[in-house]
Amino acid sequence: MTTLLTLHDLLVDQLQDIHDAEHQILAALPAMSNAAFDEHLQDAFVDHLAETHEHIDRLIEVFGIVGAMPKRKPCKAMAGLIRESEEVLNSTGDRDVLDAALIAAAQRIEHYEIASYGTVRAFAQRLGMDDAAKLLDKTLDEEGNTNKKLTKLAEGGMLTRSINKSAAKN
Amino acid sequence: MTTLLTLHDLLVDQLQDIHDAEHQILAALPAMSNAAFDEHLQDAFVDHLAETHEHIDRLIEVFGIVGAMPKRKPCKAMAGLIRESEEVLNSTGDRDVLDAALIAAAQRIEHYEIASYGTVRAFAQRLGMDDAAKLLDKTLDEEGNTNKKLTKLAEGGMLTRSINKSAAKN
Repeated sequence: MTTLLTLHDLLVDQLQDIHDAEHQILAALPAMSNAAFDEHLQDAFVDHLAETHEHIDRLIEVFGIVGAMPKRKPCKAMAGLIRESEEVLNSTGDRDVLDAALIAAAQRIEHYEIASYGTVRAFAQRLGMDDAAKLLDKTLDEEGNTNKKLTKLAEGGMLTRSINKSAAKN
Repeated sequence: MTTLLTLHDLLVDQLQDIHDAEHQILAALPAMSNAAFDEHLQDAFVDHLAETHEHIDRLIEVFGIVGAMPKRKPCKAMAGLIRESEEVLNSTGDRDVLDAALIAAAQRIEHYEIASYGTVRAFAQRLGMDDAAKLLDKTLDEEGNTNKKLTKLAEGGMLTRSINKSAAKN
């Protein structure tokens, strides 16, 4: 049972959650990259892997600023999100449709991170911990950009090809 | 193992996922509303419960438009997200901090829905199913509004009070 007496307690609790989530993403990304058919999608996952390492380094720095140990609290939500991405890896079918499914799973992961970093940034700002808030804001920006990049990839790539293939069959 | 041969297969698969997720949210909201200390937050959860019923009705309509049975596919991500909200319900501490934690959990749930509805709307648009896309867009709007409402509630309510209480102690 968690005891949350102050906003600082909650900030640390939430940082531990996203810290664990980032490590889970780090472990999941290589399989997602390997499973992608589209090479731009493979690259996007590889790029995000490098970014995720930076996000973890930044979190360690934030833990230092807020005066807490960089612990991890098992993030059950991310475990569920990654299990859903694994379901895509175990699916069969058309390569463009499978890539679109992989992007859908990845965008849910991104949205979890966007919600999480938005929350911890707001808490750090309220607590007057501006240096921590700035670091968290930088990561939040990058997660948002990854999400947009995935949308563009789907729109300009596998969705268009899927529709063209379906039309060609009719 | 899922077989995804066309974008239509993927749309139906994703609709079944969000259909299950909405039912999980429906089951979880009463406990979240009961646990909230702030009456505006209680009201927000009660309002969202009513909206969730509408979202499910709309999904049933969308299943009809796309010519699929309104099945549910167990959504593991939402199960994890809801387990995280239950962790908040089992926490103790300051009422404003606990409410802020509840909002953080609820906003992650909202972001899952925003990502999901964004995806299915894009698929329906690509498939030329404009009536389905419009219905999904309406729900997407409402999920976005709920998310913004929760941010405002936190900013104007429990976050301010938490900080004031901490300052008063120093």
